[in-house]
Amino acid sequence: MMNIREEAHRMKLVAPKLAATKEEVRNAALAAIAENLKAHQQEIFAENHKDLDAARENGISDAVMKRLKFDEGKLKSVVDGIAQLIILPDPVGKVQFRRSLDEGLELERISVPIGVIGVIFEARPDALVQISSLCIKSGNCAVLKGGKETTYTNRILFKLIVEALSKAGLPEGILVQAEQHNEIDELLQCEGDVDLLIPRGSNTFVQYIMNHTKIPVMGHADGVCHIYVDEEISDALTILVDAKTQYTAACNAMETVLVKRSIAGSFLPKLYDAMTAAHVTMRGSEEVKCFLGERGKDFEVMAEDAYHKEYTDLICSVKCVENVEEAVEHINRFGSHHTDSVLTNQKEVAEYFLQMVDSAGVYHNCSTRFADGFRYGFGAEVGISTSKLHARGPVGLEGLMTYKYKLRGHGQIVGDYASGVKEFHFKDL
Amino acid sequence: MMNIREEAHRMKLVAPKLAATKEEVRNAALAAIAENLKAHQQEIFAENHKDLDAARENGISDAVMKRLKFDEGKLKSVVDGIAQLIILPDPVGKVQFRRSLDEGLELERISVPIGVIGVIFEARPDALVQISSLCIKSGNCAVLKGGKETTYTNRILFKLIVEALSKAGLPEGILVQAEQHNEIDELLQCEGDVDLLIPRGSNTFVQYIMNHTKIPVMGHADGVCHIYVDEEISDALTILVDAKTQYTAACNAMETVLVKRSIAGSFLPKLYDAMTAAHVTMRGSEEVKCFLGERGKDFEVMAEDAYHKEYTDLICSVKCVENVEEAVEHINRFGSHHTDSVLTNQKEVAEYFLQMVDSAGVYHNCSTRFADGFRYGFGAEVGISTSKLHARGPVGLEGLMTYKYKLRGHGQIVGDYASGVKEFHFKDL
Repeated sequence: MMNIREEAHRMKLVAPKLAATKEEVRNAALAAIAENLKAHQQEIFAENHKDLDAARENGISDAVMKRLKFDEGKLKSVVDGIAQLIILPDPVGKVQFRRSLDEGLELERISVPIGVIGVIFEARPDALVQISSLCIKSGNCAVLKGGKETTYTNRILFKLIVEALSKAGLPEGILVQAEQHNEIDELLQCEGDVDLLIPRGSNTFVQYIMNHTKIPVMGHADGVCHIYVDEEISDALTILVDAKTQYTAACNAMETVLVKRSIAGSFLPKLYDAMTAAHVTMRGSEEVKCFLGERGKDFEVMAEDAYHKEYTDLICSVKCVENVEEAVEHINRFGSHHTDSVLTNQKEVAEYFLQMVDSAGVYHNCSTRFADGFRYGFGAEVGISTSKLHARGPVGLEGLMTYKYKLRGHGQIVGDYASGVKEFHFKDL
Repeated sequence: MMNIREEAHRMKLVAPKLAATKEEVRNAALAAIAENLKAHQQEIFAENHKDLDAARENGISDAVMKRLKFDEGKLKSVVDGIAQLIILPDPVGKVQFRRSLDEGLELERISVPIGVIGVIFEARPDALVQISSLCIKSGNCAVLKGGKETTYTNRILFKLIVEALSKAGLPEGILVQAEQHNEIDELLQCEGDVDLLIPRGSNTFVQYIMNHTKIPVMGHADGVCHIYVDEEISDALTILVDAKTQYTAACNAMETVLVKRSIAGSFLPKLYDAMTAAHVTMRGSEEVKCFLGERGKDFEVMAEDAYHKEYTDLICSVKCVENVEEAVEHINRFGSHHTDSVLTNQKEVAEYFLQMVDSAGVYHNCSTRFADGFRYGFGAEVGISTSKLHARGPVGLEGLMTYKYKLRGHGQIVGDYASGVKEFHFKDL
């Protein structure tokens, strides 16, 4: 069995070599990955069948089976993703600024890869390919741990990826696959070697990672997204149903609807009917129940602090608020700073909402489900961050970069500037 | 006594209001601070004398006394700092990119303040003014905790600052001063309300903060900076003595000299004489002792793992390495990823070093002491970060910002894009 600590330590030494590789080599490696996957598709599908058979025996639900499946459609989509990634500009070695501090003393800030990244992701074989590709493009080493339900598929995909990297001439050992669940705990201990952890998965799982490591963690535990209905715009119900039901398990699905009190009497019954037709159960405040009249006879009244709840299911919380100010207060208090939307045709109301809601994504007249790296045009994402430090919202290549300052002189010492013999002139170049 | 948790919670609600203030108002507040400090300088100096008297009674060292002192010179320098800050461009509300995702669906990324920041800083009254000013300019609320040795001075400075903010029309309660040491532990518990902690101080103290909070921490515990002497360039000794002695307590002071083996015989005795003349004690490998010959008779040979040591004193570690590759390996292993410098006239050697050393600052032919926000032309700094996430190196205004994505539509839902009814067109605007 692999020792993750040793692997991570070894990887830390390789990381500067990968960071120094040329764009052409990294892009050639990506192209080689796509080629190798296509060339061995029958083997991949065969291994995937083993995972699917095991899943079926374990009585896995249809929704999860869909995610486990790796067929021609999925292969095409990961291959297309790689092609998109190849044409994106190189994120490595960008000069972010250049400044002359004094005659012959020149400061530059350059983008560099973060180094060694640990990604723990759900049982989706396409995720393994996407994450590996993002790491290669951005010059980062990675320890990858996928879900155990896709063991066979991940193993063959990983083998094909590593073969391609080696042929393309990238340094050896820049990607490592962890297969055992206990290796996650080993990975959490790799501070000093692993620079960043990106866990994807359930709230409980991400919270566990955050509480058991000294390594910085990027991601989100909760996705408590809101839509505030200030006005019944023409597409209001369509947006609300899309945000709740288009993919309930997603972190950007809506969990709470806030409705302006003055429109509640006319709007809430329509919302109830639309949600019921979409198989969504509403629960919320006593006031909402009251506005629902007859319809509300089985309506569950919930406690105030339950508005923190992320359902990831066909359930949603509903509450009346007086105005946009109260909506913003509710969202900043009960939300998870992920993505929140306002429906209104009043420009000032919308701008107030976009300004005052303290979330990674603040939307006007559209569904919260747009919060996604692909839909933002980033090509792919390694995750979505609700942290305010480093990357926020969907995280693409840029979120996998840091920078370093290079200072070039010819003998300058600080003593001369402290004593006043010399003075800085600060000229941006 | 103040309840920090309640204060932080209240501050969290004020933060979006401060973030929404106009540049003119924040700049006017800064100007009012400078005015108020100048108008009440005699009171400030009188309070500062109380701190100085107490310090003298407690037998505080001369070096520390110098830092505690707040005289006309210090006042002038903080007032000049504020003037510089006022003319810097507004970091708030910058459009970082704008992209049309589809007809009438427009994505923008806007810079926004981080929110509520807790800064715990050393006993230096000028730090209180600098940090407050940086927070105001960047639209951030702050909980400030200074060293107890400057209690009287901090109290009057804080009072004058708050008076100025209030007159300028900024929201109430955007700055809070913590005065009791036990309030630090309260502050560490304010996750959810405090977005970022910036501790400045000793290694042990910063480590304590990092290990006792769930709030993200920006800063550095260690500053183990290196200079690798690949070649004896003309200013080599001057640079080495400056980097070690110009301010030994600073995190960017050099702790370890690495010397290329092929020049060690001629260079080490000169280094020894220069360091001895500057009252610096050298210690290091057996090999260095041997190269020192007669001079090395009292030279302390140290264990390999002691190269992790940050002395912050007139002591330095010395070691021979075969070449730049070995120097880079040593630095990436024993360093703290802060700032490291190479001395050489060989361009390829320098570029290899700048590329491969994994530190926030990588320097060529100059002193490590240049790693500082003022010397980089940032106007001021809230600290220096050795983290690779978010800000790295000296942290000025930019490090106090995050961003949010604003998406404006007119009824768009994700279902239409998932089903293929609509397609994204991704046009950068």
